[in-house]
Parts: sequence; C-alpha cells; structure tokens
Amino acid sequence: MSFTLEDLNQRVAARAAASPDESYTARLLSRGVQKCAQKLGEEATEAVIAAVAADRPGLIGEAGDVLYHLLVLLKATDVPLEEVMAELESRTAQSGLTEKASRGKS
Amino acid sequence: MSFTLEDLNQRVAARAAASPDESYTARLLSRGVQKCAQKLGEEATEAVIAAVAADRPGLIGEAGDVLYHLLVLLKATDVPLEEVMAELESRTAQSGLTEKASRGKS
Amino acid sequence: MSFTLEDLNQRVAARAAASPDESYTARLLSRGVQKCAQKLGEEATEAVIAAVAADRPGLIGEAGDVLYHLLVLLKATDVPLEEVMAELESRTAQSGLTEKASRGKS
Amino acid sequence: MSFTLEDLNQRVAARAAASPDESYTARLLSRGVQKCAQKLGEEATEAVIAAVAADRPGLIGEAGDVLYHLLVLLKATDVPLEEVMAELESRTAQSGLTEKASRGKS
Repeated sequence: MSFTLEDLNQRVAARAAASPDESYTARLLSRGVQKCAQKLGEEATEAVIAAVAADRPGLIGEAGDVLYHLLVLLKATDVPLEEVMAELESRTAQSGLTEKASRGKS
Repeated sequence: MSFTLEDLNQRVAARAAASPDESYTARLLSRGVQKCAQKLGEEATEAVIAAVAADRPGLIGEAGDVLYHLLVLLKATDVPLEEVMAELESRTAQSGLTEKASRGKS
Repeated sequence: MSFTLEDLNQRVAARAAASPDESYTARLLSRGVQKCAQKLGEEATEAVIAAVAADRPGLIGEAGDVLYHLLVLLKATDVPLEEVMAELESRTAQSGLTEKASRGKS
Repeated sequence: MSFTLEDLNQRVAARAAASPDESYTARLLSRGVQKCAQKLGEEATEAVIAAVAADRPGLIGEAGDVLYHLLVLLKATDVPLEEVMAELESRTAQSGLTEKASRGKS
C-alpha cells in the first residue's frame, strides 16, 4: 500500500491543528488564504523551472511541493479534496463519452 | 471507493497513448515539455486567482486543472507519480520525527 | 530618441479607449481585473520558460509581453505608472544611501 | 524629469558590478539565470494577488518588483532592454497599421 494524496491530505489536516510554533503547515495557514495561494504560485514556478531545466530530482521535489501547497490552499479555503476529485472524475467520465462518440464517428 | 490521483494518472497514461487528434492530453504531450510546463504555470495562476477572489466553484475546477496538468508534466518528463509520492512520504515521516523530537524537548 | 515604457503606456491608454471589437487591449480590459491579472501571470511564466530554455528571441518577446500586460493591469486597476516609478525611485535612493553607509563602515 | 525604466536599468547595471556581499542585485545575479527567473515568477504572482485582492499599495510595490526583477533577468541573460523596447515599438507600429487598415474598411 503506497502513500496517496489522501494520506497527504490527512497529514495536512493533522498538522493544521498543531501550533504555528511547531508546524510549518499551521504557520502558513495562520497567515491566511493569500499567503497560501502565493506559496502555490511559487512552487508551481519552481516545478516549471525544474521541468524546463530537465532537473529530474528537482522536479520530483517541486511536484511534491505543488501537491502539498495545493492541499494547504484547499484547507485554507475550506474546500474538501473530495470535491476536487469528484469534479475530476466527472470530467473524466465525460471525456470518455466524448472519446467514444468520436471513435464512433471515425 | 472514490476517485484518486492514481486513477487520474492512469487516465492520463491511457489518453497519452491516443492520437493527438482525438485527445487533448496527447496533443499537449506532443507539443513537448515546455508547453506542458507552461500549462501547469497557467493553471496554478488561475487557482491562485480563484482562491484570492473567494470563487469556490472556480477554485474546485482550477485545483483539478493543477492536478491534471501536473500529471501531464510528469508524463512529459518520464517521472512516475510514485516517485513524487515516495518523496512526500519520506518528508512526512521525517517531519513526524522532528515534531516528536521537539515535543520531547518541551 | 528610443521607445520608452512611458510611450508604451500612452499606447495602452489610447487603445483602452478603442472599441473591444478593434482593440485587443480594450477587449482585455473589458474582461476585468482578474483576466488582466491572469494574463500577466501567464506572460511571466512564458518569460521564465524562455529564460531557462536560453531562448533569446523568445525571451525578448515574452519580456515585452510582461511589460505590456503589466501596464494593462495597472490601467485595469487605475494605478498610474508614475506611482510605480516613484516607488522604484524612492527605493533606489534609499538603497543608494544604505550602500553609502555600508561603504562608510568598511 | 521623472524616473524611467531606463534609469532603473542603469541602476541594475551599476549594482550588478558591486560585490554580492553589499548588493542584493549582485547576489541574485551570482545565483544564476534560474534563480533570477524564479524571482520574476514569484513577483508576478504577488502582483496578481495584490490586483485581485484590490490591494492598491501592494500592487504599486509588486509592480515595481516585477519591473525590477524583469530587468535583472534580462541582465542575467545578456539581453539589452533596448532590444525588448525595439520589439515593443515594432509591434506597436504594426498594430497601428492594422488598426488603420481596419478603420479604412469600416
């Protein structure tokens, strides 16, 4: 059983309940939505740079940072990860149908 | 059983194998790493804007776009999602130990 | 006499007064602050990518896009370019003094 | 006579020649193109946030940071600001002609 985004999300929730003194996550959340959003933007830029620079270990770390800070931003805005995943599932189902339809046509 | 990031990743892999004519994912991948990285940057900016504007439905959609385009970028650079999750797990374990140590101190 | 940022800003102001049908600038402004901000974020990401990819002609174009879309965003938010330049001048003066002071110390 | 982007650019050039110990600009340049590009991405994200949050003083400061870090990135990549301004002038002239042509048509 490997580590999942849901595991990471539970970790974010646990850390959010800690004191800002002992948890980076709690400290970031205490600084508000704008600061959490800023961090997501920064980490995405760093992932972009690592990818374009073909820095594989860098990209692995930065991709992790993007996932982590996205979850923190969802926490800061009270959006459950489940709603994001449900939205993705619904799109995926829809695009499957579209694909089927276009296959039918060809 | 809900939809997971791993499910989305399998979907990206399946779509990557399709023809660029019938799949947005395949088309994006065919344009190369820089274009995939650019899309991640764009979606992150849109998630940032939705969060700061307190646009909840917008944020749900943009957060989904960030996850999706991050997986496409990993695909474009041949980085398995598993390596990113393993890195996150190792950090989480480490930060648990750090927390324990600091709790021991107080 | 070469083309300056102030010249570009006057051009943005002139285009802003045009019809959205005939001017990209007017069309962008009509879509509101969030859309103008999004465009700045996108162009900055593209400049970042061009720089990291050592794509010199690309960087020249993208740097121009960053300047242009920054001016459009200032227009959309009714912030005169003069206020931004005055802020930069005041910082520059201050950092000159700091530098002098630190030179004095050594 | 107000402070111009060209004045700021001369300031960047002067600071670039200083020691990394006494100049933020020199320190940033010593860290390479990727770090300079990262800073541009960060400042653009902060300008986006300030604009969307309708934080006027914040936007004035962040717009200044975008201009400053764009000039540092051009310095890091040996692209003269003049080339960017010439590109913008040529686009402006072209779009003037397009506009004229479309006016002629109506």
